[in-house]
Amino acid sequence: MKDKDKPSLRYDALGASADKDGLHEILDNIGALPTDNYFCQLLEDIALDSGYKSFIHCDGAGTKAIVPYLWHKETGDVEYFGRLAQDALVMNLDDVYCLGDVESLVLANAIARNSRHINETMLSPIIKNYYTLGESLKSIGIPLTISGGETADCADTVRTLIVDATMFGRIKKSALINPNAIIPGDVIVSLASDGQASYENVYNSGIGSNGLTLARHALLHRKNAELYPEIVDTLADHEMAYQGPFSVTDTPSELPQNMTIGDALSSPTRTYAPVLREIYSRIPVRDLHAVIHLTGGAHGKVLRFLPDSCRVVKDSLVTPPPIFSLIQEHGRVPLREMYRVFNMGQRLDIFCPEVHAKTIMDTAKTYAISAKVTGYVESHSKKEVLLKTDKEEIVYN
Amino acid sequence: MKDKDKPSLRYDALGASADKDGLHEILDNIGALPTDNYFCQLLEDIALDSGYKSFIHCDGAGTKAIVPYLWHKETGDVEYFGRLAQDALVMNLDDVYCLGDVESLVLANAIARNSRHINETMLSPIIKNYYTLGESLKSIGIPLTISGGETADCADTVRTLIVDATMFGRIKKSALINPNAIIPGDVIVSLASDGQASYENVYNSGIGSNGLTLARHALLHRKNAELYPEIVDTLADHEMAYQGPFSVTDTPSELPQNMTIGDALSSPTRTYAPVLREIYSRIPVRDLHAVIHLTGGAHGKVLRFLPDSCRVVKDSLVTPPPIFSLIQEHGRVPLREMYRVFNMGQRLDIFCPEVHAKTIMDTAKTYAISAKVTGYVESHSKKEVLLKTDKEEIVYN
Repeated sequence: MKDKDKPSLRYDALGASADKDGLHEILDNIGALPTDNYFCQLLEDIALDSGYKSFIHCDGAGTKAIVPYLWHKETGDVEYFGRLAQDALVMNLDDVYCLGDVESLVLANAIARNSRHINETMLSPIIKNYYTLGESLKSIGIPLTISGGETADCADTVRTLIVDATMFGRIKKSALINPNAIIPGDVIVSLASDGQASYENVYNSGIGSNGLTLARHALLHRKNAELYPEIVDTLADHEMAYQGPFSVTDTPSELPQNMTIGDALSSPTRTYAPVLREIYSRIPVRDLHAVIHLTGGAHGKVLRFLPDSCRVVKDSLVTPPPIFSLIQEHGRVPLREMYRVFNMGQRLDIFCPEVHAKTIMDTAKTYAISAKVTGYVESHSKKEVLLKTDKEEIVYN
Repeated sequence: MKDKDKPSLRYDALGASADKDGLHEILDNIGALPTDNYFCQLLEDIALDSGYKSFIHCDGAGTKAIVPYLWHKETGDVEYFGRLAQDALVMNLDDVYCLGDVESLVLANAIARNSRHINETMLSPIIKNYYTLGESLKSIGIPLTISGGETADCADTVRTLIVDATMFGRIKKSALINPNAIIPGDVIVSLASDGQASYENVYNSGIGSNGLTLARHALLHRKNAELYPEIVDTLADHEMAYQGPFSVTDTPSELPQNMTIGDALSSPTRTYAPVLREIYSRIPVRDLHAVIHLTGGAHGKVLRFLPDSCRVVKDSLVTPPPIFSLIQEHGRVPLREMYRVFNMGQRLDIFCPEVHAKTIMDTAKTYAISAKVTGYVESHSKKEVLLKTDKEEIVYN
């Protein structure tokens, strides 16, 4: 089947949701939404110090776990499983670093597996990598302690593997970034999600840990699901499921560094914490109007924080790394959907007065992470995000 | 097929593991096992107070999530989903209360769902009940704060639902119970897992959150899996899977209080925290030689803490509540397997000098929880647990 004859993939139709509106409605109904609106929910300090806030945060690798599973099936290699620890850890770490210069962090992990498919040899790199990453981050100043975790055998509820983690920490109230402080005139400095940062061991495709359901079904060939039916929901629309052209071992010419599809789809989520930590030491917290980790909701996520009558205009977006163009092309995914599901090459946006843009870009550069001003904030009749891509204009509101 | 012609169910063969030996080997290999041996892993205090320890702990409802799912399918009622919040919360709370009189606790929750099967109406009672339980526990003195959580849509990895939670807390070093302090001469005071405690709204079967894979397959009829194939691993041995005689709405005469099978299998895990908190105020911590939450490994779990040359002898075990006899009978489960997988009616064992037994039993009674001395510790050539049941003697070592 030629790409043009395939259905256009939509995230919701694949059993995933970009924005979780339904969940926010539940929380709203039971009065459980926090009254403040920081990047992560804040609690009274656990040690009752009035100068501090505490927080506890959960996130995970989602369906990205299927990629190392397929890689192992095709190559026998289990090492990519270890990347899931980085995904789960960084999805927490970078969320909590959006709060500001956090002071102390601890992490516990939770794995749920189908032991008929996931054995100890596959679990071992995951658990090991939590500790390796913890040491490595600690050595560059991130105040993180790795604690233990729980691995549950749930063959009747889990097809293959769920890799989640939870992070607890404390932050001085004076260090908190209130992301509702965005004002007209702010610029947006965006940090690249691809490439190889100075503290990374491998080249990163930029994929992160969001949209993997869409990415897998757009790029991977149906034969994957035929050979390994445990990688697909039995109720999936089989017109849409795994409609792509690739095996995980393929190396399409569009990908940089001779990357395989498996390598690109399992590229571990980059942490920006070392860069943020340095930025927090160089720019006054009151001038950091919002630090946004572009995960669920991606380029629409800032709407959670944007004041009324402000418009975010991104007219100089990062050129999406090749993995995103491949997904878009083979999944025939509308660009509007792509920017709502994927980071598209910039997984961190910092909103601040223009005067600080150079400091942020210079700091990122010292870690070999490219950064640029991708847009600005302006007064507008209503709250919205306008993306001026080179192909079309997209509005989220 | 008559029960006597069915295969004897074994937990491992159903894709679950009672003792997680393989996982402990991974942790041992990577040097990640804590050097001390408290009930939960301890960390340096997050607030750097030298008088305190911190801890972060994960656990969840496991495959118990399938029971409210079936109940909803058969009756249309979603309320039993809320019980899963209690399961995930208490599996954490009662583990951390085995550390001693903890001072402050926060909880975050993580749900992974297949949104094709689990909609917002089913999620709502789960999320709501975390907050309801938090308020209720706080009102009886448990220092618990409920924070938010994460719900991930993972249709390709999750058949129905995973409900997990993570608890962070602090405890004074002087309040810590070192469970390696068990000595010959100690008695074991055991608290009942069934009945209705003064702080509970419904009668409890005693099932807890362990062994649900075995319980479901032993008791529930194959037609459940035929109607709802999403409740069983596609690789399950279909000779063993759902080999029982019951629908979730059946009310076998053996169950008390006219309980349905669905009610009995989804009975929310009882917390002993209010009882323990009072015991901790009445008995000096040095006289509490171990407080053991009988979860994974059940009656064999104490082996993790038992000193060499000590034997635990339980010669006066609690009479197993009817749900366990039903599971054993219909699954043809060896008694040795039953006591390794299930709490069998006593989910908390306190090891202490005999002089304190009455205080513990009296305290439990004020909360309408029955308690009794079920055994003792003696010197022995090697570390082991001996259960003298009314049918046979069982040894774990």
